[in-house]
Amino acid sequence: MAVYTIVNADEIAAFIDEYDVGEVISFKGIAEGVENSNYLLTTTKNHFILTLYEKRVNENDLPFFLGLMDHLAHKGINCATPIADREGNILKTLCGRPAALISFLDGLSVSRPSVQNCRELGAALAEMHLAVADFKLSRKNDLSIEGWKTLAEECDARADECQKGLRNIIADEMEDLSNHWPTDLPTGIIHADLFPDNVFFLNGKLSGLIDYYFACSDMLVYDVAICLNAWCFEADGAFNVTKAAGLIREYDAIRPLSDSEKNALPLLCRGAALRFMLTRLYDWLNRVEGALVKTKDPLEYLAKLTFHQQVKSAGEYGVDMGI
Amino acid sequence: MAVYTIVNADEIAAFIDEYDVGEVISFKGIAEGVENSNYLLTTTKNHFILTLYEKRVNENDLPFFLGLMDHLAHKGINCATPIADREGNILKTLCGRPAALISFLDGLSVSRPSVQNCRELGAALAEMHLAVADFKLSRKNDLSIEGWKTLAEECDARADECQKGLRNIIADEMEDLSNHWPTDLPTGIIHADLFPDNVFFLNGKLSGLIDYYFACSDMLVYDVAICLNAWCFEADGAFNVTKAAGLIREYDAIRPLSDSEKNALPLLCRGAALRFMLTRLYDWLNRVEGALVKTKDPLEYLAKLTFHQQVKSAGEYGVDMGI
Repeated sequence: MAVYTIVNADEIAAFIDEYDVGEVISFKGIAEGVENSNYLLTTTKNHFILTLYEKRVNENDLPFFLGLMDHLAHKGINCATPIADREGNILKTLCGRPAALISFLDGLSVSRPSVQNCRELGAALAEMHLAVADFKLSRKNDLSIEGWKTLAEECDARADECQKGLRNIIADEMEDLSNHWPTDLPTGIIHADLFPDNVFFLNGKLSGLIDYYFACSDMLVYDVAICLNAWCFEADGAFNVTKAAGLIREYDAIRPLSDSEKNALPLLCRGAALRFMLTRLYDWLNRVEGALVKTKDPLEYLAKLTFHQQVKSAGEYGVDMGI
Repeated sequence: MAVYTIVNADEIAAFIDEYDVGEVISFKGIAEGVENSNYLLTTTKNHFILTLYEKRVNENDLPFFLGLMDHLAHKGINCATPIADREGNILKTLCGRPAALISFLDGLSVSRPSVQNCRELGAALAEMHLAVADFKLSRKNDLSIEGWKTLAEECDARADECQKGLRNIIADEMEDLSNHWPTDLPTGIIHADLFPDNVFFLNGKLSGLIDYYFACSDMLVYDVAICLNAWCFEADGAFNVTKAAGLIREYDAIRPLSDSEKNALPLLCRGAALRFMLTRLYDWLNRVEGALVKTKDPLEYLAKLTFHQQVKSAGEYGVDMGI
């Protein structure tokens, strides 16, 4: 929720002059994301997002992220797309930071997704997974099993500051997931962070997916597991099986899930819940008192993990097991 | 640089439905100001700023601030204007906070004002001062002599933490200003915070004045003194008399300054410098370590104060004294 690099009027005018997008008439820092500096830029021709990549993003990953967005846009997926300058460059430099001009996507994110929102999300996710099939670049998922192990070790000594017993819960879950994490499911490029704030709707229809800065190579159905965690629990913690069933059914109609993928869902949902619990726990343990960025509650994901641990089959998520 | 109240898609749609401004197609928190929550809102018809007034703003002052913006807009001053809903209300409630929908002003603020920028600022300030002459409401300046005394007392014990000797400098200046502060100069509604980030330019022309949330009743020429402090010092601390002369000359051409007003300028410039030094010092002494909001440097205004203390006549600001 901050702008880290302040860009002044002369700098932005000179930067935009290298593109064929008209002249700047407005330029405002927007409170979106904690990783990068984002500006909403209006020119005489259109609206854009200007992103300056700050130190939390690995510069070496930028060609992958921007290339992915460009690839998806060319495949007709509604997503923010990097704009090329007159010389064809999409990754540029501004105020000493890597920077990209990105197309502006109309729409609003929903804070309380409806069943219909979940259905549309399932369809959009499947379409994205089909569209990335011929994308040439790849990127290791730093936040899969190995990454969780590192996070778990870093949180180990102090995990119980958050909740008594959490240290043991993490250790046990970590061991179990390590022993059973699937290695034979279909892989591809996943979004890996498709929370409601990264999905736009307009007049009740899904209008676009944004924020590809966690995208990576992993099991496609793991992306579904992340979405089940992020979209299908109510504010009171209850799992909404109607939302889950709708999400999965619409996904399955576009990219059919194999039986192996369906059967793996409960375990993958546990993994996804652990992943977000661990990053939130790490941020919570390393939070700065009084800072404006509100740390997200790790215990929300502990509750989700506990739910998934009790799920015996994907049928409990509303998956049609074809039996 | 933050959004304090999170407004969700349903809430904003219901709120905007009470206006005749089209349907919401985009809604983003903007990193502007530290007092309020500001959103950039795009509808099918236009762009707007939606402001939710947070606790640092006194709700009782809102009819004054919004009424002033409305008055200025009707007088043809380029400024952000509150939009009335279908029932004619401009001050509304959203998410439990007072809220107003404000027109969106194109333009960019300059970080390094040019001489020409200063000239245009002088003219726009004078036009604003003429336009407020028949505005019916008034608001006491909480940050004049009495307010400074309070701030000075609150900072007194710890002022030297910022710089050795600062406590005595403040006490001496406070006493001198109290003894000589003018009481017989023309008054009216002043902006009182017309820093470069509150003034927009488009294609080199001044396109609008924003952020009226410090506006109050005070000596009109004190607004000029604030602008001389905020616009006419270079980054290295040097006073640029060409900028000051241009600002004052263009102001004077539209609203002629009396000899008394001109003669009072050095003292008023000292007051304005002390005012911003004190609020910055207070924020600096009460800063939160690690917080994202960067506290502004009080010593920048100590240097400006020291400069003005050495000024013997307004002629040193480039004022034509007509001698």
